[in-house]
Amino acid sequence: MLARDPGLEVVALAAGRNAGLLAEQAALVRPELVILAEEAPGGELGDLPPGTRLEFGSRALEALAGRTDLDLLVVATGGMVSLRPVLAALAAGTIVATANKETLVAGGHLVMPEARRLAAARAAEDPRDPLADPLGWLRPIDSEHSAIWQCLVGEDSASVARLVLTASGGPFLDLPAEALATVTATAALRHPTWRMGAKITIDSATLANKGLEVIEAHWLYDVGFEAIDVVIHPQSIVHSAVLFVDGSLKAQLGTPDMRLPIQYALTHPDRHPSPAAAPDLVAAATLTFRAPDEARFPALRIAREAGRQGPWATAALIAADEVAVRRFLAGSLDFPGIPRLLEAAVAAHGTRAGAPCVDDLIALEAEVAAAFASGAVT
Amino acid sequence: MLARDPGLEVVALAAGRNAGLLAEQAALVRPELVILAEEAPGGELGDLPPGTRLEFGSRALEALAGRTDLDLLVVATGGMVSLRPVLAALAAGTIVATANKETLVAGGHLVMPEARRLAAARAAEDPRDPLADPLGWLRPIDSEHSAIWQCLVGEDSASVARLVLTASGGPFLDLPAEALATVTATAALRHPTWRMGAKITIDSATLANKGLEVIEAHWLYDVGFEAIDVVIHPQSIVHSAVLFVDGSLKAQLGTPDMRLPIQYALTHPDRHPSPAAAPDLVAAATLTFRAPDEARFPALRIAREAGRQGPWATAALIAADEVAVRRFLAGSLDFPGIPRLLEAAVAAHGTRAGAPCVDDLIALEAEVAAAFASGAVT
Repeated sequence: MLARDPGLEVVALAAGRNAGLLAEQAALVRPELVILAEEAPGGELGDLPPGTRLEFGSRALEALAGRTDLDLLVVATGGMVSLRPVLAALAAGTIVATANKETLVAGGHLVMPEARRLAAARAAEDPRDPLADPLGWLRPIDSEHSAIWQCLVGEDSASVARLVLTASGGPFLDLPAEALATVTATAALRHPTWRMGAKITIDSATLANKGLEVIEAHWLYDVGFEAIDVVIHPQSIVHSAVLFVDGSLKAQLGTPDMRLPIQYALTHPDRHPSPAAAPDLVAAATLTFRAPDEARFPALRIAREAGRQGPWATAALIAADEVAVRRFLAGSLDFPGIPRLLEAAVAAHGTRAGAPCVDDLIALEAEVAAAFASGAVT
Repeated sequence: MLARDPGLEVVALAAGRNAGLLAEQAALVRPELVILAEEAPGGELGDLPPGTRLEFGSRALEALAGRTDLDLLVVATGGMVSLRPVLAALAAGTIVATANKETLVAGGHLVMPEARRLAAARAAEDPRDPLADPLGWLRPIDSEHSAIWQCLVGEDSASVARLVLTASGGPFLDLPAEALATVTATAALRHPTWRMGAKITIDSATLANKGLEVIEAHWLYDVGFEAIDVVIHPQSIVHSAVLFVDGSLKAQLGTPDMRLPIQYALTHPDRHPSPAAAPDLVAAATLTFRAPDEARFPALRIAREAGRQGPWATAALIAADEVAVRRFLAGSLDFPGIPRLLEAAVAAHGTRAGAPCVDDLIALEAEVAAAFASGAVT
């Protein structure tokens, strides 16, 4: 997509430790800089294109994010590690497109004021500038949030009544509560509609993922938790929707292909032709919707409650979910243990007063990881 | 709705001959002027509010439409009679919201250049002005076209790939071809989802209505006939959709309540709270989609072909449909006779060269009515 679109130029690429894939991508888009966040990469880096410089370490990442000559930074890491680069980019007046959930779930109270400040400066010049909207500065890559963003284009945020986040329901949608206790990681990894990484696939099976998205939606669209609905839609064609005060519901539909929302975050407010196949309503034939079962999938309720409590609670929640999923995949926690661990972590680490800064959030992540790494608590 | 919304002031109300209903509405919204188009009204007019003046006749209607002190004219008549007032209003720089199908089906080549001229003048001042778009000047009230318009808000028209018009399919959706020959007017008037007038309910049963909407969509959104799809959606919740070049499909959903699209045409680009109930995806549970059967419902194909031929053909089509439906309701034409009459009228009266003016269109309407009023032709 990036290699094909003449309107997009890649200045730098960064990776954690997958040196081979980084070199492959560098050969395609020929950036001026590639960064490996780990100082001593495990894999082979291979040949870089002529004119491409190599740097190492998280300090190089932060320096890149803080450059003032970039248009847009795409963040696709997991974890709190994204927070400093995102804040550095916004401080430098660079648009951020993020697939990282921690940015908003844990750091919404830190990043949104930055995005609003940048938007307000544009609005003072021209209220109809696409960058007069905080969403122009902090752009969601998640298909659900991209859907809501697309439905909001050209609409006044004051006319939003409710947000409707759709969820596939995951592989255990119809499994009885008692059967959930014995499901295996292998079964949980078989997502019915999307092909994704292991972490997000398990999060999708527990509905923790949807709970985190409710919290993100709250921050991104400045909508109260009571006005954010979750609807189970097993076909994953309606990606999400917005209900307006006049009773009109706008929905964005698409095939389950992440290239579409990723590209939209890069090209907004324009749309470029994309390799994603168009959705076909006649071929889809039937779209179904039902309410989520919060008794079998309590992570949704736990996330909502954490959202209402505030950023310490949501930061504890997302840190705990990292541990819980890792333990479920390793076999040291059963499936119902995941929401149990989330609830315990929010109760134990999420009740502090005041607003956590980046250092607090990074410390909290380590604290939660240490507290729940073994089976002692649950 | 008008009586309740403090942002809307009604200057004048007009009716054909329903004097009683006109007086009732005048009492609610207290306009400065009411007009009865028929010189000698049949019903009782009743008391008008103090300060409300009464005028008669189509000349009074045209004088009203041409006033330069109005913001918006709502047109809800049937027939070619709407064309002159619509053109007079646009010439005076007044926004037109129309539920009248002839305006675009027969007069698209006359009214759209006016709407584009008004939009271009605004665009020269501020390309992001909502009135820099022809749709700001000629506003659709039909639920399908309102849906497409709502999906286009904030989007670049150059990024539209296809339009998807939904159709309930009408009461005979699943009736075998041979049974269609004996259906009665009473059965045809039982529309499954919308409560509407007799004419539009029969048009919905034959899919002629959807064919006319395809032609309207062609004019309103400047999209070729090959890029306008019709999809049968019996639940009438998805009102229509737009596919963009990146593979994203935006749809507008709502309960079947005309108050929503009528209000949107008045308040665009704003949305005001409305009495229409919000759609509930969980309560709807299942939305289905299938391709229209053009063998059983050929009016759709006939309308598309007329659209490709041009305004003489589409004007003959819509004039013929008036006659055909009147004859079906009166029992002098069977159900399959409706599309047969449409096709015969387009063939006999729709092949002239050049573009018809308003006088031509009014003459054509009379000509078609005379030619097909009796059973001689079909």
